[in-house]
Amino acid sequence: MTGPHTAPAATSPPAVVVLDVNETLSDMAPLAVRFAELGASPLLAATWFAALLRDGFALAAAGASAPFAQIGAEVLRTLLDGEDLDRGLDDAVDHVMSGFVELDVHPDVPDGLRALSAAGLRVVTLSNGSASVARRLLTRAGVAQHLEMMLSVEDAGVWKPAPGAYAHAAGRCGVDVADLMLVAVHPWDVDGAARAGLRTAWVNRTGSAYPAHFRRPDVEVASLGQLAERLRSRPPGRG
Amino acid sequence: MTGPHTAPAATSPPAVVVLDVNETLSDMAPLAVRFAELGASPLLAATWFAALLRDGFALAAAGASAPFAQIGAEVLRTLLDGEDLDRGLDDAVDHVMSGFVELDVHPDVPDGLRALSAAGLRVVTLSNGSASVARRLLTRAGVAQHLEMMLSVEDAGVWKPAPGAYAHAAGRCGVDVADLMLVAVHPWDVDGAARAGLRTAWVNRTGSAYPAHFRRPDVEVASLGQLAERLRSRPPGRG
Repeated sequence: MTGPHTAPAATSPPAVVVLDVNETLSDMAPLAVRFAELGASPLLAATWFAALLRDGFALAAAGASAPFAQIGAEVLRTLLDGEDLDRGLDDAVDHVMSGFVELDVHPDVPDGLRALSAAGLRVVTLSNGSASVARRLLTRAGVAQHLEMMLSVEDAGVWKPAPGAYAHAAGRCGVDVADLMLVAVHPWDVDGAARAGLRTAWVNRTGSAYPAHFRRPDVEVASLGQLAERLRSRPPGRG
Repeated sequence: MTGPHTAPAATSPPAVVVLDVNETLSDMAPLAVRFAELGASPLLAATWFAALLRDGFALAAAGASAPFAQIGAEVLRTLLDGEDLDRGLDDAVDHVMSGFVELDVHPDVPDGLRALSAAGLRVVTLSNGSASVARRLLTRAGVAQHLEMMLSVEDAGVWKPAPGAYAHAAGRCGVDVADLMLVAVHPWDVDGAARAGLRTAWVNRTGSAYPAHFRRPDVEVASLGQLAERLRSRPPGRG
């Protein structure tokens, strides 16, 4: 209502951009190769990650929490048990879990982070995984310096999408939740953040449909670079 | 401590046995066939069900809720979009969802329910799905008369494993949560029930390992019939 409509619509920038890490920054496609290297179907990678989150969210719904890597390894063990693998179960679990910590970022991430930083925005990460995995990922990509902090729900005591996880980020950033914008590829993260009072951006690299059971994002973009553009181009009269 | 150790150990019966429905009573194996009939990999069935629960639990962790069938159809649509299917996306979603409501019970379920009933136990179901799906499943199996009630979290406003779902069952049964025994194949259900104050039994038909991140069940059995035996054989001096 502040000026003529332009596409893409301008969005006033938040105080802090809060980036999810797994799959939002990291490209998890190589994990499917790890499963194939074991002699298992590469399709198990998607089952594994969905089941990992399922168990972590179950604990969050029940008011409890466990480390991401611990749940990941346990779920993997259950999933691979009984598969016809080329090595023992312990080695197979290690092979996938070590692949997880060696992932690289999506191609749009380095320039996107530079653009967000160049726009003068504070940028942090908030992961259900450990801060060390995020640090390693972004250091390998040569862009760790654009992040003010790398936060983990391990310090919140509860996983996203429980509201306490987002409140933890707000507290560490010294701002209100309404001054944060959560950025994620996962609709469940967008939904939880929206319910917790944050603004939200959905990164949809694959042209997916957004599930009707979740609150819609304030902003939808195809890349982090596009997000930076949207947050840089302030509405007329507000810059 | 009330008598010599016997195997299997006797377990004092609860006031009410609360049975999970999906996968605990119903055999979901035919769903893999439905995916194959579409031209998709049968392995997608496991991914679909894990992602369905993931999204439902995400809403529970965020303090919200949506109907099981709605989430199921939405997740399915995302999963099947882009697959090389033998029919349109709407028809493909319908094909799997209609298969879901036509599942049959596991072979051990009819005799197991009769044995629980014959032991004088009150038996109810508590599902994250609708009560009508449970009723149809158990009516087809000819054992609906052994169930005192078929409960759904739809009337609780929150899914298992959030504590409110189990408290709802206790309220409807007119007993304390400690007088309920939750029976499920899913460790996340056992864990949530245990944290909510219920006693728990894990039905492990496949010889799986129990995940370390979840609270262990009070009782582990391979079938519902075995559960009935355990609950019928009271400790010496207590019968």
